[in-house]
Amino acid sequence: MEKIILNPIGIIHTPFKDPKGIPIQPKSGKGIKATVEVFPEYIDGLIDLDGFSHLILLFHFHLSKGYSLKVIPFVDDVQHGVFATGVFATRAPRRPNGIGLSIVKNIKIEKNIIYIENIDIVDGTPLLDIKPYIPESIAAEEIRVGWLSNKLSFAETKLSDERFL
Amino acid sequence: MEKIILNPIGIIHTPFKDPKGIPIQPKSGKGIKATVEVFPEYIDGLIDLDGFSHLILLFHFHLSKGYSLKVIPFVDDVQHGVFATGVFATRAPRRPNGIGLSIVKNIKIEKNIIYIENIDIVDGTPLLDIKPYIPESIAAEEIRVGWLSNKLSFAETKLSDERFL
Repeated sequence: MEKIILNPIGIIHTPFKDPKGIPIQPKSGKGIKATVEVFPEYIDGLIDLDGFSHLILLFHFHLSKGYSLKVIPFVDDVQHGVFATGVFATRAPRRPNGIGLSIVKNIKIEKNIIYIENIDIVDGTPLLDIKPYIPESIAAEEIRVGWLSNKLSFAETKLSDERFL
Repeated sequence: MEKIILNPIGIIHTPFKDPKGIPIQPKSGKGIKATVEVFPEYIDGLIDLDGFSHLILLFHFHLSKGYSLKVIPFVDDVQHGVFATGVFATRAPRRPNGIGLSIVKNIKIEKNIIYIENIDIVDGTPLLDIKPYIPESIAAEEIRVGWLSNKLSFAETKLSDERFL
């Protein structure tokens, strides 16, 4: 199939200069402030975005090289060695197409700068897309979270390490 | 900034052969069945995915050419003409990086085929990524949905038209 070529539309500026030790999901990065710099040529695309309390950011895992189909998620102990899950059942950065997804709190928008909170993103990350977060668009059905089901509270406090760099 | 090159990891097969007249969000496509064909070389990435009731699919809006920063969403009447919102405050397909996001129900996985339900995706769409849907990773905060707030029930029944092709 045809390759798809993307051009970053902005840069995400965060306090996390090093990909080691950052929260592994927005919930554990609660209250941490950051900014999204949208390149000025895209500023018209931000009209009406201020009305949404939360935004979906799609970004490029620019520090991850290559990918692994079987991974040991951050919430498991890398030293166990034997446990591995499919990369598509995780949010691990080293994936075939290195697109990351975070839902962040939209604090305010000034010109082409979006002030956000609840951050699990490394500084300098290229921004690919912004979508409004609309909880009602998710069908209200019973939710199961597989291998994560007894690990979610651990994920809130666990920080990243070097395993996906 | 550097361009990002993606390679599709599969194809989404759905009953919607024509991008006109498909549901505009998964909730309105409830019960509609489809399959995700993951290319065989990525099959190890699907390990443990069967435990998740819902999946986030990222895909390429392959039928949309170019983009508009100001759009008239499907939930508004195109003939009003004067109303336009920023593309990043919508899910419109004609966006700077044409990445679509749908949360679908995971029915079963057989080898490299994922059987899904709740579909708002056109047949033949290139698949870019699969992530587990984890509601707990979204910070539990007050949610506001801006311009959509009095249009959400309409969005459940509204079908797409030709405006984003």
